[in-house]
Amino acid sequence: MSEDSRETFDHDPVAHAEARAGMTVGELAAEYGSAGFGAGALHEAVDIYAEMLGDDVTNFVGLAGAMVPAGMRQVVADLLRDGHVDALVTTGANLTHDTIEAIGGHHHHGEEPAEAERRAHDEQLREEGVDRIYDVYLPQEHFTAFESHLRSEVFPALAEAGSVSIQRLTAELGRANAEVNAAEGVDANPGIAAAAHEADVPVYCPAVQDSVLGLQAWMYGQTSDFSLDALADMDRLTDQAYHAEEAGALVVGGGVPKNFVLQTMLVSPDAYDYGVQLTMDPPQTGGLSGATLDEARSWGKLERAARNVSVYADATVTLPLLVAAARERVGE
Amino acid sequence: MSEDSRETFDHDPVAHAEARAGMTVGELAAEYGSAGFGAGALHEAVDIYAEMLGDDVTNFVGLAGAMVPAGMRQVVADLLRDGHVDALVTTGANLTHDTIEAIGGHHHHGEEPAEAERRAHDEQLREEGVDRIYDVYLPQEHFTAFESHLRSEVFPALAEAGSVSIQRLTAELGRANAEVNAAEGVDANPGIAAAAHEADVPVYCPAVQDSVLGLQAWMYGQTSDFSLDALADMDRLTDQAYHAEEAGALVVGGGVPKNFVLQTMLVSPDAYDYGVQLTMDPPQTGGLSGATLDEARSWGKLERAARNVSVYADATVTLPLLVAAARERVGE
Amino acid sequence: MSEDSRETFDHDPVAHAEARAGMTVGELAAEYGSAGFGAGALHEAVDIYAEMLGDDVTNFVGLAGAMVPAGMRQVVADLLRDGHVDALVTTGANLTHDTIEAIGGHHHHGEEPAEAERRAHDEQLREEGVDRIYDVYLPQEHFTAFESHLRSEVFPALAEAGSVSIQRLTAELGRANAEVNAAEGVDANPGIAAAAHEADVPVYCPAVQDSVLGLQAWMYGQTSDFSLDALADMDRLTDQAYHAEEAGALVVGGGVPKNFVLQTMLVSPDAYDYGVQLTMDPPQTGGLSGATLDEARSWGKLERAARNVSVYADATVTLPLLVAAARERVGE
Amino acid sequence: MSEDSRETFDHDPVAHAEARAGMTVGELAAEYGSAGFGAGALHEAVDIYAEMLGDDVTNFVGLAGAMVPAGMRQVVADLLRDGHVDALVTTGANLTHDTIEAIGGHHHHGEEPAEAERRAHDEQLREEGVDRIYDVYLPQEHFTAFESHLRSEVFPALAEAGSVSIQRLTAELGRANAEVNAAEGVDANPGIAAAAHEADVPVYCPAVQDSVLGLQAWMYGQTSDFSLDALADMDRLTDQAYHAEEAGALVVGGGVPKNFVLQTMLVSPDAYDYGVQLTMDPPQTGGLSGATLDEARSWGKLERAARNVSVYADATVTLPLLVAAARERVGE
Repeated sequence: MSEDSRETFDHDPVAHAEARAGMTVGELAAEYGSAGFGAGALHEAVDIYAEMLGDDVTNFVGLAGAMVPAGMRQVVADLLRDGHVDALVTTGANLTHDTIEAIGGHHHHGEEPAEAERRAHDEQLREEGVDRIYDVYLPQEHFTAFESHLRSEVFPALAEAGSVSIQRLTAELGRANAEVNAAEGVDANPGIAAAAHEADVPVYCPAVQDSVLGLQAWMYGQTSDFSLDALADMDRLTDQAYHAEEAGALVVGGGVPKNFVLQTMLVSPDAYDYGVQLTMDPPQTGGLSGATLDEARSWGKLERAARNVSVYADATVTLPLLVAAARERVGE
Repeated sequence: MSEDSRETFDHDPVAHAEARAGMTVGELAAEYGSAGFGAGALHEAVDIYAEMLGDDVTNFVGLAGAMVPAGMRQVVADLLRDGHVDALVTTGANLTHDTIEAIGGHHHHGEEPAEAERRAHDEQLREEGVDRIYDVYLPQEHFTAFESHLRSEVFPALAEAGSVSIQRLTAELGRANAEVNAAEGVDANPGIAAAAHEADVPVYCPAVQDSVLGLQAWMYGQTSDFSLDALADMDRLTDQAYHAEEAGALVVGGGVPKNFVLQTMLVSPDAYDYGVQLTMDPPQTGGLSGATLDEARSWGKLERAARNVSVYADATVTLPLLVAAARERVGE
Repeated sequence: MSEDSRETFDHDPVAHAEARAGMTVGELAAEYGSAGFGAGALHEAVDIYAEMLGDDVTNFVGLAGAMVPAGMRQVVADLLRDGHVDALVTTGANLTHDTIEAIGGHHHHGEEPAEAERRAHDEQLREEGVDRIYDVYLPQEHFTAFESHLRSEVFPALAEAGSVSIQRLTAELGRANAEVNAAEGVDANPGIAAAAHEADVPVYCPAVQDSVLGLQAWMYGQTSDFSLDALADMDRLTDQAYHAEEAGALVVGGGVPKNFVLQTMLVSPDAYDYGVQLTMDPPQTGGLSGATLDEARSWGKLERAARNVSVYADATVTLPLLVAAARERVGE
Repeated sequence: MSEDSRETFDHDPVAHAEARAGMTVGELAAEYGSAGFGAGALHEAVDIYAEMLGDDVTNFVGLAGAMVPAGMRQVVADLLRDGHVDALVTTGANLTHDTIEAIGGHHHHGEEPAEAERRAHDEQLREEGVDRIYDVYLPQEHFTAFESHLRSEVFPALAEAGSVSIQRLTAELGRANAEVNAAEGVDANPGIAAAAHEADVPVYCPAVQDSVLGLQAWMYGQTSDFSLDALADMDRLTDQAYHAEEAGALVVGGGVPKNFVLQTMLVSPDAYDYGVQLTMDPPQTGGLSGATLDEARSWGKLERAARNVSVYADATVTLPLLVAAARERVGE
């Protein structure tokens, strides 16, 4: 071994994590810094995300898939409320499920508390009118209430609007969800779209037609002068990227939200200075969802000097942990 | 053990696969039928897909992510040419990379034949103007040629069209790609969009703005009377689902293409009779991409009696194998 | 929807996790209970493990692979010290790396804090005499010190012992590691084997020959009257299972430690009453490492009424979290 | 882009795989060479394994976990018969299930042809006396026949042997399995242990006690002068590594078989010249099972110039494909 590499190994030893009763989440994250593998990556993620919570960073958040049915709705809404999200890119599914809860509906844990999905009977669920999302159940009747809400509170505001941006639709959704919640007697959590509305944060939803929200918009458009312009949101989003002093990307899951957050930098002179990715999609399939953020650097989506990390572990576990630890770190 | 269950175990033993020099892919798939785990699932997939190749089945194909850069372009183009695809749902990325090759560009294997990605230097690639997609490299200069092609051959046909469906854009892309290929002196493979154009098969691309194709469309729209209607494609797609005698879904990878293929049945009185899914996304994350097709049954996207199977293995391995074996089975 | 299923859905709604600055790990785990997917499973795991920490439960712990190099050494040592492990099944690799640290060696974080492994140069590491374990580095010189320790402090006690059980070897290792640590001037953490020695907990290591510890034992045996009996440990382990009032299995990772913990119940009249598995191996490969604990129930390794859960997420993240939260729950 | 890198990109374009009816497996593997991701890796694996089938290469094969129940028994037995295996490292589970079939027992496909495991009722299986291995079922009564076979045909040859190597036990098992098969009226496939016996290939099984075979050996040893020496096999295995002109490692799955094949080179002056790994364990967990073979190079287990590749896809799919294609390539 050369002197040089020996020197290298005089610092930064693996010190072994401790797990103590009563420790805070921030203390746990600090312990992860003693470890390697996923724990080490998560510690690094907390470190980077704490920097991203600083005032100078414009934060773009990608929220994939089924994070709302899985129970991550409040974590994201709170980040919006506290000014930690400047642009949210998500799926029509998340907005659909967010709204279902905003108007009083609920998702439910599968009947078996743990590995329930293996014993679930999807045929029987179909008969009973229950949709399954892994181990979360949703009675289909909630979609009827969702449709009513859209047709009475959301779409009318757009009925004569002609072709509007998708972000305009999500803003109306947020307004309506907030209003319903403010009404007397409604005991429900206003959620993500409402929080974005109140914080005046744009919610982008590139594949909105790929959701029940989109299906309803399509049906409404058939009897009104209403349509959605697929390209119009690029103006505002690109503008946000262009004017960001420093830019950070928090990517939860993969798919379109991840790619849309990253590709924004292709039409901007700069790129992301910070990148944190929480995913369980494996990189070795070659798919974008599991790709490392290093790969994004080759495309110029991350600055060469950007701090970035990918944590390969269930995002329902790591997102609340990341947020609690980073908030503790910055003294919120 | 009861008599009943003993009876059960008189049939269907695991017989152990053989691997012989010179055997055909169809013979290999038959051997998989002797095995369990992924091999057994792949055998079942061949069985189902061979039925789907019959004349009465309307086939909806979802093609996710990076399947074109990964080399699956010809397999899909050939299925289109031979009448085995009735609706294709894919990503803007796949159409972008498909077109880059149609006009003479190329993707390249990473320099290291095998686990090259681990040694790759994404920073250096950035300096050299090379984009990385796992172990596939793409010189960025091809995006300039792609832009020229769009601006000279594709977009002008839509310049005065106002708001058009996304499928209209993909159709013009297919026409242009075919024309360029028919021109003298061009030595390139026309590919997926061109094959769809020639077979008159609609190509749906719900999140088209989430791609370089979409970015170019957005920029073109800023100086012309051209925009894309996010909802307009639902008419034709829903119509296809409605009129299908029998419907089959071949889903390669997850994301929007998978969900869009499946959700179509939410607004149709019927559902899929056949479902084959090739993916390596893990179901235990709860994400849609890795979800079993059984889960889709609880939503009414698959018929209760549908034949369906999920093969959890790299789709670049399983797709060509599935197609070759099913084609052999039906005597093509 | 029937009245019955409606009734079902009156309870147990997904309530959405909160992530607050300063919350304890136990509070975070409680929030996970509001969520689904992996978070819900981890909450269930904390619930079960808190029960397992009760006095009447005999706890068998399986610790796979590279958990010591990854920084999980102290968590396990503390569990041993506090009486929460009655039998530990692990790998020769873990014991080797545990001992290297006990005598003053260190593992090191790879030079790049995060996704370092992708830029690592294994050829160069080879030249520099550094072994890589994902993102953890180990200078090979530590193996020389390890060999000296074995030959001076451990093996001599067995030189004339003839054929001994593997557990006897691990006990001598623990004794020697503890003694070295008690010696003046040594500033190192005694670790797992030492803690097991001090708590008089047997450490089983079925595939000990599959490690550097095993290689050294083999070489020592060639010049002494010392050998290891592969079967002798079954007496004590089976005895422990037989006499357990209630039995719990905490399985961290898969492989031999997982299977050996579980199979013990094949020769016992009873089976596990509690099972918690932390793994990131996917179940859909069919391998034992990722298999659900439900599968173990079909073999009679778990009681029919056992409480069990599998958490599919990086164990370096979930193990400290599980332990801290369960300890907080039981008021340690 | 520099001239240099431009030059790089004049060669080796992704050419796109074709999937034709009637093509051979070797032709399919050649098509994979046109693709990237897993298909490209599998093509490389065929290329390397075809070289490994040459006369000068000593082949060490690691066969993990549940490959025999999954239906890979004949592929491995045929490789043994044809001289393509010089040392086999496997699990007690594989040998147990191999023997169950050699004496007339059978594994069975789960009742549901495809995603059956999700509907399986492990509690009911327990009641019916059926063990489940993912989607493969095994009636427990076969274990009774297995015990009789061991006690009448295998163990008596070792009753007075004292402490023997594990390889001696597996050799007696192979002999007995072959003899039972040669007996009149037995209609069963002799399998792996028998093929190894007939080809005089040693079968190593480091964690034999971690299996039903091991449990039976332990019980037999309690009433006879028989025990297993955990370390004795290292002599012969190391000798094989030492005398190999060229050495190749074919690693199917992870765990002890993988590590034991690789670590052999730690006590040999040379290292592997060829390495092919078929696995679906993800590398990003940090576990040995999913680790790349590059990592093994840092330990000196592979030659710096070795050709090596890891294929991340279900091994029940890729093993038969690899073997058939490589056999076709070398003209067997």
